[in-house]
Amino acid sequence: MKLLIIGGGGMIGQKLASRLATDDRLGKHEISELTLFDVVSPAGPAGAPFPVHLRTGDLSNVDEAQALVDQRPDVIFHLAAIVSGEAEEDFDKGYRINLNGTRHLLDAVCSIDGYLPRVVFTSSIAVFGAPFPDAIGDDFHTTPLTSYGTQKAIGELLLSDFSRRGMMDGIGIRLPTICVRPGRPNKAASGFFSNIIREPLAGAEAVLPVSEDVQHWHASPRSAVGFLLHAATIDAAAVGPRRNLTMPGIAVTVGEQIEALRTVAGDDVVGRIRHVTDEKISRMVSGWPRNFRADRATSLGFQADASFEQIIRAHIDDELGGTIG
Amino acid sequence: MKLLIIGGGGMIGQKLASRLATDDRLGKHEISELTLFDVVSPAGPAGAPFPVHLRTGDLSNVDEAQALVDQRPDVIFHLAAIVSGEAEEDFDKGYRINLNGTRHLLDAVCSIDGYLPRVVFTSSIAVFGAPFPDAIGDDFHTTPLTSYGTQKAIGELLLSDFSRRGMMDGIGIRLPTICVRPGRPNKAASGFFSNIIREPLAGAEAVLPVSEDVQHWHASPRSAVGFLLHAATIDAAAVGPRRNLTMPGIAVTVGEQIEALRTVAGDDVVGRIRHVTDEKISRMVSGWPRNFRADRATSLGFQADASFEQIIRAHIDDELGGTIG
Repeated sequence: MKLLIIGGGGMIGQKLASRLATDDRLGKHEISELTLFDVVSPAGPAGAPFPVHLRTGDLSNVDEAQALVDQRPDVIFHLAAIVSGEAEEDFDKGYRINLNGTRHLLDAVCSIDGYLPRVVFTSSIAVFGAPFPDAIGDDFHTTPLTSYGTQKAIGELLLSDFSRRGMMDGIGIRLPTICVRPGRPNKAASGFFSNIIREPLAGAEAVLPVSEDVQHWHASPRSAVGFLLHAATIDAAAVGPRRNLTMPGIAVTVGEQIEALRTVAGDDVVGRIRHVTDEKISRMVSGWPRNFRADRATSLGFQADASFEQIIRAHIDDELGGTIG
Repeated sequence: MKLLIIGGGGMIGQKLASRLATDDRLGKHEISELTLFDVVSPAGPAGAPFPVHLRTGDLSNVDEAQALVDQRPDVIFHLAAIVSGEAEEDFDKGYRINLNGTRHLLDAVCSIDGYLPRVVFTSSIAVFGAPFPDAIGDDFHTTPLTSYGTQKAIGELLLSDFSRRGMMDGIGIRLPTICVRPGRPNKAASGFFSNIIREPLAGAEAVLPVSEDVQHWHASPRSAVGFLLHAATIDAAAVGPRRNLTMPGIAVTVGEQIEALRTVAGDDVVGRIRHVTDEKISRMVSGWPRNFRADRATSLGFQADASFEQIIRAHIDDELGGTIG
C-alpha cells in the first residue's frame, strides 16, 4: 500500500509518519512506500522498514498537485494548511494554499480514470462560528468566523461532493485544537492552550492571554494520529454521504487545564504561567467553539483522550522522556 | 444608484429588471442605471426610466468579471447559475460557472480598494441534503447531495467571509423552489413542480414523475423578486455575520398543489396531469428538503406567499392575463 502525507513536515505529519514506520502497516495492509510532501523538506521517520520519499513543493501549483497524485497513492493524508492566525493576516496566502491547493489536489485525483484513493482531509472545529449551543451537535451549521475556517468548510464540501460522485473516497475529520502541541509556537492563534502547559513543564514561563473561564475542545497529538489512522481505514459505507466528522475531544476550561497541570506537576510549575490579557486574542477566542457532542465519530469508533491530565501525561512521556523540567 | 444583475436574462432576472423599471427606485435611492449581464443577450425591461445596458459574456472568465465590477455598481444581484440538473450532468461546467464564476466575481469586488457594494447572492435550499428534521431550522448544517447545492454552499461561505472582512457587503438568500415558473421547462430537476400547474392551466398535458405525497418548499416568482429587493436594502448590521438566510416559503405536498389547482381551475384542468413515475427523479427528490422554519428571514422582514392557491392566482394574473386556457 502506497501512502502520501501532504503536510508531512508538520507536527502531526511527522508523528503520523513515525507511527506508520513503527506499525509497518495501515489496517490490514502492509505499507510498500511512503511519500512525505511539504513546502520545506520534511524529515523522514527513523527506522522505516519501507522506502520513504521526501518531496518539497507548493500545492497551490497545479502541476505539483498532479505530479503527487500521478504516483497513485492508495491513501492520501491531506494535512497541509496555512494556520488560522496566518490565514487571517494574509488573505491571499490563506486562500491560495488552503482553498486553491486543496482544490488542485482533489481535481488531480478526479482527473485519473478509475483511481479512487482514500483521501483523509484534516478539517477543523474552526468551521464553526459563534453563537453556539452549549454543545455543538453533528448537525450544527458551519458559519466560520475566520478565513481559515471558511477554507476548511469549503474543503469539506468539495470532499463530500467528489466522494458522492465516485471520483474519490474522502473522509474529513474536524480536529479539536491539538494540545499539548510540542516544539516552538506556530502562528495559530490557539497556541496559548499548549504554551501554558508545555513551557512551564520545560522550566520556562508562558503567557496566558485570555481569562481562565475560557472553555475549549482539545485532543492530544496521540489522539490526532489515532484519528488519522482510523479515518484511513474506516468503511466509507458506514460513514455515508456526510463525509465530514467532528472528532471527539475533551472540553475543559483554561482553569481546568491549569488545575490538571497542578495535579500532574505541582504548584511551582503552575507558577510559571503569567496572566497578561490580550484583547485581540480574547476577542478571537470568544468566537470559538467550547464543547461538542461528537456522537457520529464516537459511534464510528474514533476515540478521544480520557482526561486533560492524561493529555499532559502523554506529553511528558512522548516529548520529555517522562521527566518534568 | 447603479445596479447590476448578473444572470439578468433568466426568469428571475427579467422579472427583477421589470420591477426595478416600474419602481424607478431601490429602497430610498433613485436608480441611475441598470446593467443586465448574461451568457446570451438579455432583453431590457420595457419602459425603463433610466439607461439600461445589456451585456453578454462568461462569468468564468476572470477579465469579464473584473470589467463588470469596474463599473462600480452600488448593488450587484448575482443570480447566474448552471441549474441543478445540468450541474449534475456536466461536472466541469457546473464547477466552472457556479464556483469559479462566483469566486471571480467576489475576487473582482474585493480587488477594488474602498469599494463596498451590496452583493445579493441567490443561494438555494439545495445546500441542504437528507436526512432532515421535520422542518429545517436556521442552524441546520449544509450537507448538499448535488454538485449544484455544493457550489451554492461554497458561494455562501465566500460571501460571508469576504463580508466579515469588510471587502464587500453580501447577503445570501436561499430561495425556495420557484413555482409557478413561467415559460418553457429548463433543466432544473425540480421543473415538474411548476409543469403540473403551468401546463394544465395553459390547456396542455403535464407529466408528474413523483408520488403525490412528496412535500416541498415553494415561493412564487413575485415573492422571489420581493426577497431580492429586500435583500438589496436590508441593514446588514441587523443580519450580523451569518449573511446567508433561508427564505420563507410554503411547504405543500404535490397532492396539495393539485388540490389547490382544482380549487382555482377545476377538475378538467387537473385532469391534464398524467402520473408517470420517473425513478431517477424520484430518487433525487427524496433527498430534497420538504419543510423549513425560516425564523431569521421572517424576523428580518422577508415575506412569503400566503398559500399555494395564492401562488397559482399570481401566476394566472402575471402570466396568463387573468385567464385559464
